[in-house]
Amino acid sequence: MTENKTYNIAILGATGAVGQKILQILEDKAFPINEVKLLSSKRSAGKKVMFKNEEIVVEEATPESFTGVDIALFSAGGSVSKQLAPEAVKRGAVVVDNTSAYRMAEDVPLVVPEVNQADIANHQGIIANPNCSTIQMVAALKPIKDSYGINRVIVSTYQAVSGAGAEANLELENQTKQFLNKDELTAELLPVKGDKKHYPIAFNALPQIDVFQDNGYTFEEMKMINETKKILHAPDLSVAATCVRLPFFTSHAESIYIEVEEEGLTVADLWKVLETADGVVLQDDPSTQTYPTPLDAVNKEDVFVGRVRKDLDNDKGFHMWVVADNLMKGAAWNTVQIAESLIKNKWL
Amino acid sequence: MTENKTYNIAILGATGAVGQKILQILEDKAFPINEVKLLSSKRSAGKKVMFKNEEIVVEEATPESFTGVDIALFSAGGSVSKQLAPEAVKRGAVVVDNTSAYRMAEDVPLVVPEVNQADIANHQGIIANPNCSTIQMVAALKPIKDSYGINRVIVSTYQAVSGAGAEANLELENQTKQFLNKDELTAELLPVKGDKKHYPIAFNALPQIDVFQDNGYTFEEMKMINETKKILHAPDLSVAATCVRLPFFTSHAESIYIEVEEEGLTVADLWKVLETADGVVLQDDPSTQTYPTPLDAVNKEDVFVGRVRKDLDNDKGFHMWVVADNLMKGAAWNTVQIAESLIKNKWL
Repeated sequence: MTENKTYNIAILGATGAVGQKILQILEDKAFPINEVKLLSSKRSAGKKVMFKNEEIVVEEATPESFTGVDIALFSAGGSVSKQLAPEAVKRGAVVVDNTSAYRMAEDVPLVVPEVNQADIANHQGIIANPNCSTIQMVAALKPIKDSYGINRVIVSTYQAVSGAGAEANLELENQTKQFLNKDELTAELLPVKGDKKHYPIAFNALPQIDVFQDNGYTFEEMKMINETKKILHAPDLSVAATCVRLPFFTSHAESIYIEVEEEGLTVADLWKVLETADGVVLQDDPSTQTYPTPLDAVNKEDVFVGRVRKDLDNDKGFHMWVVADNLMKGAAWNTVQIAESLIKNKWL
Repeated sequence: MTENKTYNIAILGATGAVGQKILQILEDKAFPINEVKLLSSKRSAGKKVMFKNEEIVVEEATPESFTGVDIALFSAGGSVSKQLAPEAVKRGAVVVDNTSAYRMAEDVPLVVPEVNQADIANHQGIIANPNCSTIQMVAALKPIKDSYGINRVIVSTYQAVSGAGAEANLELENQTKQFLNKDELTAELLPVKGDKKHYPIAFNALPQIDVFQDNGYTFEEMKMINETKKILHAPDLSVAATCVRLPFFTSHAESIYIEVEEEGLTVADLWKVLETADGVVLQDDPSTQTYPTPLDAVNKEDVFVGRVRKDLDNDKGFHMWVVADNLMKGAAWNTVQIAESLIKNKWL
């Protein structure tokens, strides 16, 4: 930031896992804030939250809350965004929305700044933050696509429970204790809050994230498929996804297979473009067992890539392992990056 | 078993996780045993193990241990198998070996009975039990391959720690407690005992199972690739694998992408051949959130298949999710099935 101007920022969902991370980042990065307004649902209104050594009372979000706000960062669920984002825009705020409500809307840019920052310029008041599992994947695909082309992506995910919210963390912790005590496991939330059936996540793996669609894919899988094509401006790219919830708290990992367009590439060719890519850190050395893991990525801003291998049968096929903190780059940090970009490029 | 004849059985590695499971199965299935001899390394010799309400003292395995033995079930590690399997064969025993020592040897059948039982007939004294992650995959691939052909397999695994032995279970349990107590995690064993670096597995995911090979793949990945081709008699089948260790105790899960040879197939076509396949149980109904999970597969003999979906871009592409108990079908039960087959088909 070289600007001296400061901005009025509203954070909707300020008491949630992502809202808390956003506040931490705004403070750490010395974001040019004039005034910060913390908003939430009625249920969480009245709670007090610390920001820059000051106690701020969280207010219930209403349409009027956004009067005088420059940038509003939304992460309070899709239905809240659908209701309040247009109200905020009407009052002159630019909304960065962290839910799936507007991601596939034609007039809403869906942005990972390292990948398609320029799309922000065309915003009509709302900019959507992509799904966590999509963000880290496109960050790794982008430099490869730019240099060598990509026409096929097949991903299997290894996703942390915090993607289902702070209460999912609590469920994992409780079930873990129950398992170690040889008690029966209480499953009331995962895989999907409000869905018909619940499975234990402790010491288990659940091949369902979000609800099933009519085509047999889950909504999480369809998000990865559709959002990836939109962000990469590649409607004809073949993308397939299998999304799996796993018993760890933070960071998603992804086993990704790609087919590039160029022939005869080597692992070194992929390393070359990955190690110079914005927001990507290459951690890849089998000789020293160097590769990213979810625990090592916690609280980091970057997307970590390792286990880059050439397919043994297909000259254009490559495999890799991509890890990022789902609450940071997968949510809060990407949101703040978009807000920074709005200011830096005078796109407000 | 319709035979009245009984057999002298030796179990090498009787105190290990797989050895214990083998004993349990032999007892449950009323395997036609005349005498059972429990063998181990020097370190475990002298331990007492219960079998059919009888306490049996485990003896140190020597070449002479196999005199008079009809069938020897080996699961005490590759170096022990290399040393003692030829000695057992020399003394007239048929060895079913649960290590990687002989799997790729040309004169050793590598067998999953539901898939290639007939290969046992050609044995020269040793029959190899495939790698756990391979067994469950080929069980699911075989019925599809027989009916529709398969020319491409890409798998990402979700593997339980018990695949690394009983001491890995203990490491996961200890680290889990340390994590919940906010203590530092002690990592001394995983991902690979004796390798240079160790990572915590609790609330984490490790993209390394077994040691790295010169081509950047792990030995586990190469086992899946090479063994699948051998078992399916398909040297030209394209197989790619990414193997990941996860924080659960039992059962491996696999996200598998296949390309079939036949055009125009539907999910129902795959269901049809999977639900009638030997040793395979189809658990696949998105409308009721029905799919297999590792916890549900514990102590079961079968291979469970769910989440069968047609690829959205490739008419010949399908995705599925395959789960099995890595100690049962992935090891002990497959070993006992081979022993049963030796007897039933008079292939001893």
